[in-house]
Amino acid sequence: MSRVSILLEKDLRAIVKLDSSAVDCVEQAFAALATESVAMPPILRLDIPEYRGEVDVKTAYVPGFDGFAIKISPGFFDNPKLGLPSLNGLMILFSAKTGLVQSLLLDNGYLTDVRTAAAGAVAARHLAREDASAAAIFGAGVQARLQLEALMLVRPIKSARIWARDHAKAQQLARVMAQEHGLDIVAKADPGEAVRGADIIVTTTPAEKPILKAEWLEPGQHLTAMGSDAEHKNEIEPAVFARTIYVADRTTQTRILGELHHAIKAGAVMPDQSFAEIGAVIAGKAPGRTSADEITFADLTGTGVQDTAIANLALARARDANSGQTIDNEIKMGDAA
Amino acid sequence: MSRVSILLEKDLRAIVKLDSSAVDCVEQAFAALATESVAMPPILRLDIPEYRGEVDVKTAYVPGFDGFAIKISPGFFDNPKLGLPSLNGLMILFSAKTGLVQSLLLDNGYLTDVRTAAAGAVAARHLAREDASAAAIFGAGVQARLQLEALMLVRPIKSARIWARDHAKAQQLARVMAQEHGLDIVAKADPGEAVRGADIIVTTTPAEKPILKAEWLEPGQHLTAMGSDAEHKNEIEPAVFARTIYVADRTTQTRILGELHHAIKAGAVMPDQSFAEIGAVIAGKAPGRTSADEITFADLTGTGVQDTAIANLALARARDANSGQTIDNEIKMGDAA
Repeated sequence: MSRVSILLEKDLRAIVKLDSSAVDCVEQAFAALATESVAMPPILRLDIPEYRGEVDVKTAYVPGFDGFAIKISPGFFDNPKLGLPSLNGLMILFSAKTGLVQSLLLDNGYLTDVRTAAAGAVAARHLAREDASAAAIFGAGVQARLQLEALMLVRPIKSARIWARDHAKAQQLARVMAQEHGLDIVAKADPGEAVRGADIIVTTTPAEKPILKAEWLEPGQHLTAMGSDAEHKNEIEPAVFARTIYVADRTTQTRILGELHHAIKAGAVMPDQSFAEIGAVIAGKAPGRTSADEITFADLTGTGVQDTAIANLALARARDANSGQTIDNEIKMGDAA
Repeated sequence: MSRVSILLEKDLRAIVKLDSSAVDCVEQAFAALATESVAMPPILRLDIPEYRGEVDVKTAYVPGFDGFAIKISPGFFDNPKLGLPSLNGLMILFSAKTGLVQSLLLDNGYLTDVRTAAAGAVAARHLAREDASAAAIFGAGVQARLQLEALMLVRPIKSARIWARDHAKAQQLARVMAQEHGLDIVAKADPGEAVRGADIIVTTTPAEKPILKAEWLEPGQHLTAMGSDAEHKNEIEPAVFARTIYVADRTTQTRILGELHHAIKAGAVMPDQSFAEIGAVIAGKAPGRTSADEITFADLTGTGVQDTAIANLALARARDANSGQTIDNEIKMGDAA
């Protein structure tokens, strides 16, 4: 008999929040990448151009976590015309000991939102100055909001500026965040102005051409770019690499999907140049920031270890809260049709 | 709102059988490989050596099918010590138009058993002589039994021989199949004797060294090898390639996982030699068998199009039979944590 717990989006929203537990479990998973024999195969990608659809499958086995997650993330970009969100998906959590299905996490992408923002917090915790208090956010979508909330978990954020291509959306987000969090927050029409005086800059856009210029950066700043998760996406001018300490979530991914990819293509970085990963910085195996004047730059493309971390957290919380429903799936042994 | 149907193993065993509908839908999916713009990415593979675990993820989008399946197949080879089967898994069926989850097929590998046997029937239907009546089966497991039943769906099978490394198991399977199907069926202790006079031979073992020799083959026979689905597995002597018309399920896979892989490694086949696929034979784009004397050889490693085919059949049957349970998973739009 196999016992499977099924958690719906509303269950998961009730029990998993962007909080310090989420940040800590993602941090632990990144550290494992540098210290344990993590298995994280390349992303499986299925394209359905007929319906402007694309599907990514990510997974990772992380020693220290009881289960491994397989996450399926469809993006179907004609969905809004049908009144449906473009992004969806689910995670399946399997026992790392037996391979049996433990839990179906029907999160419609919610857990991805949380673990992605949590990675931004981890990057800031290990790379931004301790006293960083002014944030600049590029973009006005779900991640713009969550990344700002993530920074507030790890640094004494007092003020923020929002820049977005659509200034009205930036103003709207600024209003909401000011109300909810009592931050001193303004929308900026000029992206260079948003960067000026900020301690931490996070870019969260689907830009396909750089929206952040190297000349805008100032000593002591930390930059996280998390918008790019595909070959054609690019938020950061390649010249930024010459001014910053660069740290990837996973260099094998950022060389293909991240900002590093475009810097190499532009000739700003040698193809064989090696870089630290955030896990090595967490584990003390790579330096990260070594002075208050350096500019640090985290390139986050999203990794299977984050999915495995958040899925394990979700199942643990669901058990504590007695949340979701359980079904018993009888296994017929040694026979078939 | 997203409506998801959940089907358990017992539901699926009740509604999906190895029958001509299963064979036809797998045939249609193979044909699409040769005639439609199918998207079938390489298999994603996760290894967990700590627990002798391995996980394969397969998928394919096949035009003409409403949904695409993603199949997750864990194999954990210490499970029998815990009283659990080694092989498990589930399929998830997504709408090809929106990417929304349509159905969770918690089949514990049952649908894979059916679609794998169905592929054997498809190969025999298009490559074996019309009058083929004597079958030889290598192996005595679930697929040995199912492959024989699959042949009975497409050819006038009257007799069969079973050879297995464990002769007692071959005898046991012969007894069961004689009882259930009224076949003239015997277990053979000598594999060469099992091949002699057979019209169709199907190998279903996890052998890592050839168990079928080229010199045993006779004019007019058809051979299907379906045991190998991993680099180290090998059932067929490479010299068989010089005597047979070879057809792959997918050459990009059989060059890595199938019998073709070992023939190339042994130097029996040039690495750049091209071969037909079963889909092209079905679609009339490749000849297959052209005379009663030829020996044909199908190399089946298992493809994502078969999973998509059987998962669509399962959901259609479940809807007709009002089987399984349905859950409504509310999607929160445009907002997050």
